Amino acid sequence: MEDNILLAHGSGGKLSHQLIKDLFLPQYDNPVLAKLDDAAKLRLTGDCLAYTTDSYVVNPLFFKGGDIGRLAVCGTVNDLAMTGAKPLYLTASFIIEEGLPLAALKKILISMKQASEEAEVEVVAGDTKVVEKGAADKLFITTSGIGVIEKGLNIAGANAKAGDRVILSGDIAEHGVAILVEREGMELDVEIKSDVAPLNHLVAQMLKVSRKIRCLRDPTRGGLATTLNELATQSEVGIRIEEDKLSIKEGVRGVCEILGLDPLYVGNEGKLVAVVDPEDSQSVLEKMRQHPYGTGAQIIGEVVEKPTGRVFMKTSIGGSRIVDMLAGEQLPRIC
Amino acid sequence: MEDNILLAHGSGGKLSHQLIKDLFLPQYDNPVLAKLDDAAKLRLTGDCLAYTTDSYVVNPLFFKGGDIGRLAVCGTVNDLAMTGAKPLYLTASFIIEEGLPLAALKKILISMKQASEEAEVEVVAGDTKVVEKGAADKLFITTSGIGVIEKGLNIAGANAKAGDRVILSGDIAEHGVAILVEREGMELDVEIKSDVAPLNHLVAQMLKVSRKIRCLRDPTRGGLATTLNELATQSEVGIRIEEDKLSIKEGVRGVCEILGLDPLYVGNEGKLVAVVDPEDSQSVLEKMRQHPYGTGAQIIGEVVEKPTGRVFMKTSIGGSRIVDMLAGEQLPRIC
Repeated sequence: MEDNILLAHGSGGKLSHQLIKDLFLPQYDNPVLAKLDDAAKLRLTGDCLAYTTDSYVVNPLFFKGGDIGRLAVCGTVNDLAMTGAKPLYLTASFIIEEGLPLAALKKILISMKQASEEAEVEVVAGDTKVVEKGAADKLFITTSGIGVIEKGLNIAGANAKAGDRVILSGDIAEHGVAILVEREGMELDVEIKSDVAPLNHLVAQMLKVSRKIRCLRDPTRGGLATTLNELATQSEVGIRIEEDKLSIKEGVRGVCEILGLDPLYVGNEGKLVAVVDPEDSQSVLEKMRQHPYGTGAQIIGEVVEKPTGRVFMKTSIGGSRIVDMLAGEQLPRIC
Repeated sequence: MEDNILLAHGSGGKLSHQLIKDLFLPQYDNPVLAKLDDAAKLRLTGDCLAYTTDSYVVNPLFFKGGDIGRLAVCGTVNDLAMTGAKPLYLTASFIIEEGLPLAALKKILISMKQASEEAEVEVVAGDTKVVEKGAADKLFITTSGIGVIEKGLNIAGANAKAGDRVILSGDIAEHGVAILVEREGMELDVEIKSDVAPLNHLVAQMLKVSRKIRCLRDPTRGGLATTLNELATQSEVGIRIEEDKLSIKEGVRGVCEILGLDPLYVGNEGKLVAVVDPEDSQSVLEKMRQHPYGTGAQIIGEVVEKPTGRVFMKTSIGGSRIVDMLAGEQLPRIC
């Protein structure tokens, strides 16, 4: 086998078949994919299906705490989990720049396999395209995913009500800062790692203790600020949060200060925001703290009636600040 | 609104929301997508689900007979249809190079909408990422799709049996040649158009007259030769076809001759190969010819027991030629 990806690896012909047989199938050894038909055939039980897609263009491909492969699996698993669905199946489509070392591709495929195993999902269909050198930057991965939503469960961005509590699952801004540190080659005393992780098992635990979880969302691109604004807009409510309740690791805060980044707008890949009925908020919080990906969970604020579509933050020094949606681009290609 | 795509259109923040609201949602006006939650929620009936994905990196974005948008919808619809499924829902994920004119993106979205309407599928989830100038070539689209397979239907690449007839739905090599002509700026007397089309309605008609359709596959990348080799390998049979039964438009044949391309290896985007029980092959053929995308259907050969995994072609002058899988890359980025 060659060491680097050639254009012919994307031809659909002999080299494509060899690439799939030698590199892809060993990582995704399931009977559905092994059939190599044009589409996967699946049997599903459950009342309602969740279905989503995301493209991943993160630069660099490898960073502390993860890589584009782990990101592509976790990101789509999390989008499914944020509807309350149990994620079941993924597809993965690869756009590869000619010349990518096969060793890098293999490392990414293994990482995807590990993330899939952790999330307990199966990759059942895929595609590879190769473009000439310079027509893409190394590798882009697009995943899609399907999951089943239990009957009667209704979690959506439009469901927040005044009085609901806003829970955040842990420290913010780690993923975006980790990418930036890696990309800029910054030398730091502390290690900053991406938080990229599949959150479906955490969500499953939360659903065990409450059926009054109104909204779930993972604050990725645009950060916590953008996610809260989305929820406030979709639900036509206001949201008030307290700065003191937000937790940011010291090193992450330091990098943000040096670079003039507002951590509220930096993307996360292993955190979630839950809007929960006040009656259940404490039990949901406690359950979250028992899960490895929710140990740092906090009630960070609550939903208010007005002003609709607006997010306010009570600052540490006692003031109140409007937290707007991200304008412009703070950190391109973090996911 | 700006005229060209900016990096901030991919930020997840204000400009992203504006792009989705102003450009994407008007084309995909359905209640599922309009919710803007992290995943679409769907209700499905049917026993078995088909699920697939493909990335589209065609260069140029626009060509005679279609564009990357029509291709991205039809390609995934066809992959579903080739399992006998009725395609229902698509996702579409866009990787956009900074600077792409919004007018081009809009044209492509409208084309996707039209193709979706023709195929009677709905785009229910999507994503956009923007990368800096030079990090991608204009636009890549990845679609995924799900469909339902009727109970008892079993169409798969491994199902061909000796004696089965091989039906091809029409002229070959049009798509690949149309892309090449466009890309190279060749001036021709005849118009060569891509055949890109959704084949699900044609398949539905075929299934009305026969339950003994063993395999369906669309001969895209790698062309008819590669598809037949795939079927022969998966089914562990041989396939014999007759050159005289293959139909190629005069202009397409001419370009292939000038450029030294073998039309057997040039990709199609609106053709299918069906392997059918000999008893039903005539009725399937007749039904196909009544459909606009099957008027040129022909029985081009048959399945034989041996040699397994091999495709032979009886040539026009009476010889026999091995038709191997595509080796190397004949035409990069045709889909």
